[in-house]
Amino acid sequence: MLQDQTFLRIPGPTPIPPSVQHAMSQPMIGHRGSEAKELIQRIRPRLKTIFGTEQDVLMIAGSGTAGLEAAVVNSAMPDDEVLVIVTGAFGDRFKKICQSYQLNTHVIDVPWGEAVNPDKVAAYLNQHPNIKVVFSTFCETSTGVLNPIQDIAKVVHQTSDALLVVDGVSCIGGVECKMDEWGVDVLVTGSQKALMLPAGLTFVAASDRALNKMKENPQPRFYLNLNTYHDKLTDYSTPYTPALSLLFGLEQVLTLIEEEGFDKVVERHEMMKNMTRAACRALHLPLLTTDQDASPTVTAVQPNDVDPENLRSIVKQEFGLSLAGGQQHLKGKIFRIGHMGYSSPADVLQTISLLEIGLHKAGKQVEFGTGVAAAQAIYTQLQK
Amino acid sequence: MLQDQTFLRIPGPTPIPPSVQHAMSQPMIGHRGSEAKELIQRIRPRLKTIFGTEQDVLMIAGSGTAGLEAAVVNSAMPDDEVLVIVTGAFGDRFKKICQSYQLNTHVIDVPWGEAVNPDKVAAYLNQHPNIKVVFSTFCETSTGVLNPIQDIAKVVHQTSDALLVVDGVSCIGGVECKMDEWGVDVLVTGSQKALMLPAGLTFVAASDRALNKMKENPQPRFYLNLNTYHDKLTDYSTPYTPALSLLFGLEQVLTLIEEEGFDKVVERHEMMKNMTRAACRALHLPLLTTDQDASPTVTAVQPNDVDPENLRSIVKQEFGLSLAGGQQHLKGKIFRIGHMGYSSPADVLQTISLLEIGLHKAGKQVEFGTGVAAAQAIYTQLQK
Repeated sequence: MLQDQTFLRIPGPTPIPPSVQHAMSQPMIGHRGSEAKELIQRIRPRLKTIFGTEQDVLMIAGSGTAGLEAAVVNSAMPDDEVLVIVTGAFGDRFKKICQSYQLNTHVIDVPWGEAVNPDKVAAYLNQHPNIKVVFSTFCETSTGVLNPIQDIAKVVHQTSDALLVVDGVSCIGGVECKMDEWGVDVLVTGSQKALMLPAGLTFVAASDRALNKMKENPQPRFYLNLNTYHDKLTDYSTPYTPALSLLFGLEQVLTLIEEEGFDKVVERHEMMKNMTRAACRALHLPLLTTDQDASPTVTAVQPNDVDPENLRSIVKQEFGLSLAGGQQHLKGKIFRIGHMGYSSPADVLQTISLLEIGLHKAGKQVEFGTGVAAAQAIYTQLQK
Repeated sequence: MLQDQTFLRIPGPTPIPPSVQHAMSQPMIGHRGSEAKELIQRIRPRLKTIFGTEQDVLMIAGSGTAGLEAAVVNSAMPDDEVLVIVTGAFGDRFKKICQSYQLNTHVIDVPWGEAVNPDKVAAYLNQHPNIKVVFSTFCETSTGVLNPIQDIAKVVHQTSDALLVVDGVSCIGGVECKMDEWGVDVLVTGSQKALMLPAGLTFVAASDRALNKMKENPQPRFYLNLNTYHDKLTDYSTPYTPALSLLFGLEQVLTLIEEEGFDKVVERHEMMKNMTRAACRALHLPLLTTDQDASPTVTAVQPNDVDPENLRSIVKQEFGLSLAGGQQHLKGKIFRIGHMGYSSPADVLQTISLLEIGLHKAGKQVEFGTGVAAAQAIYTQLQK
C-alpha cells in the first residue's frame, strides 16, 4: 500500500485542509497581547453566520463534551427538572451529564436510528409542566440521524417556558442552522467535525433568555462558567488560556467557508448525503435511517450479508480508508461513513469505489461500479 | 466547490506526501557543516536501488533539463557524432541541447505515441559507425510511451562502442530500472515526478566508461561538470550550494519507498497503468499508445468525440482535478493522466469517477460507473 496515504471518512475527527494545517503552524504569540485580541476580534463576528445567531459564540479550550457540560451547568439550576431526548449515544451523554449533577432528569428514549417525533416532546412537556430545560442532539453521530430541531424548538416554546439546549457537535458548519429564528436557547459544537479543525475547541452560543438565567444560576462551576467567557469576549479575550493554534486554524476555516459561501457548503453536505445514500441503495446496503431522518454529515449502514467489522478492517488495511463502526448496542451491526467538513462529492465517489472493492473482498456479491454510478447520477441531476 | 482541495493528476509535478512536506519544513542547517554531511551520507547509498546501479547517483540543484544538459556536455566531446532518438517532446529537448553545443547530431524520428524499435537503432548505428553517444528518453512524458531501454542498450553495445545516455525523468522511481545490468551509461532523473518531491533537484548516475570519458572531455562547462559532483560526493558533499530542503524531503521519500518496498512501488505503478487503460477502454476512449509501449507513470488518451481542452477545463473547474493536455502537435488532440509517485489505485478510481462526470458534461454518451468498474476488476484480478 502507498505509504503516508489515508482516507479519514469517519464522523469526526475529519481531515484538516492544508491551508488550515499551515495556518496552525504559525509562530506562537502571547495570549494576552494585542495580536491575540485582534485575532479574536476578527473571528468573533464570523462564527455567527454558521450558528444563525446574532449572539456571541463563546470559545472554550476543551472537547465537545466540555461544551455539553458547560451547557448543562449553566442552563440548568440545581433543583431544575430537565428533559433529555435520547436518540443515540450522544443523547445518552447529555443524560449522563445531567445525572452527574443530580438533576431531576426525565428522558424520552427514541429507538436508535430514528429521529424524535416533536409531537411526543409536546405531549411529554404537557404532562410535566415543571420541566425547565430540554436537551436534544441535532445530529446524532452514532446513528446518522438529524433531529428536527426547528420543529422541536417550536413545540418546546408552545408548550412550556423551558430552555432548549442543543448538541450540534457533528453537524454545525455543515447544515443550515437558524438558532435565533428557530428559538434554540443554547447551541454547542466542537472543532473536529464540520469545522475542519483538530479537536480541542468547543463553541457555545446562548440566547438572551439563557444568558439571563446563567447569571442567576447558583450551580457551582468555574472553568465552564459561561458568564466569564461572555464577559471576556466583549473585550475580545478569554478568561483562561485560549487554544491559540486552533484559533489560528479557525480563522482560516472561516475564510474557506466564506470563500465557498456558507449556503454552498450546506448544499455540498446535502449532496454528499444524497450521493452516499443512493450508492448504498444501489449496492443493496440497507440504511439505518429514513431519508427524512438522515443527516447530511454521516450515514449509517446496516448490511445484512457482510460483517461490518470485517469490512472496515479490509478497507483500512487495503486502502487506508477509515470508516466508523457502531457504538454501544449497534457495535458490530452497522458501519458509518462520515461526509462532512473537508470532504467533497469527489471524496464520496472515491469512498464508494473503495467500499465496492471492500464488499467484494468481504464476500458480498457486488456489481462493480453500480454504487459509483448511482452517486454520479445524483451528482449530475441535483447539481445547481 | 470545496475550497483548498485539488487533485494533481498530471505527469509531474506530482503531489507531495504529507510526511515529506513536513520533513522539508525542518529548520535550515549550514550546508558545509557536519549535519549536511551526515544527511548526504545517509541518502547516498539509498538512491542506488532505484537506479539499479552500484555507481554513485549525483545530485545537482536544478530542474531535469539541467540534468539532461549535464548528461550531454559530460558524455559528448565537442567533435563527437551523436544520435538522438526522438519519440516526443523530451527526445526533442535532447536534440535541441545537442544542437546548441553544435554537436554533429543524427536523429531517429519516431511517430509520437510509438516507442522506438531497437532494430532501427541497430541499423542506424551500423550505417553510422562514428556515432559516439546515443541519447534516448525512457518514459516519453508527452506521449506516455516507455521506450524499451533494456533492448536499446543491448543493440547499442552490440553494434557500436557508443555511450547510451537515458532521460529517465518521468519514470525513475516508478518503474524497474537495472542501469548496470542493462548497460545504461548515463541515467538522468528529476525530483518532481515519481520521486514525490518538488522540482529543483536532478539526479545523474554514470557508468565507469562514461566517468572515464568525462574526465578527458574538453567540452567547456562549470556548474554542470559532473567530475566535480562525483569527487565531492566521495566526501559526502556537493561542489556548490545544495538544495537542502529538497534533500530533507528526499530522505523521507526514500524512507517511504523502502517502507513500501521498491518492488511493491513498481507493482503499484504497473497496477495504476493497467487500471487506467482498462477504464479508458471501457469508456470508449482511444489510447494513444499500445499496451506494449505504455508507460506505468502516464497515460495519453486521444478522444474522438470530445474536445480534450474542454474536458480538462470542466474537471478542473468542477473538482479541482488537473489533467495534462498535449504538447506541440498533439496540443488539443490528447489529454494525459499522470499516475506516479504519491498516487494509488484509490486515486485512479477517484480520477476515473470524476473523468466520467467530466465526459458526460462535455457531451459524450457515458454509462456512469463503467470506467470505474473496469478499473476495479483489474485491481481485484491482478492484485498480488
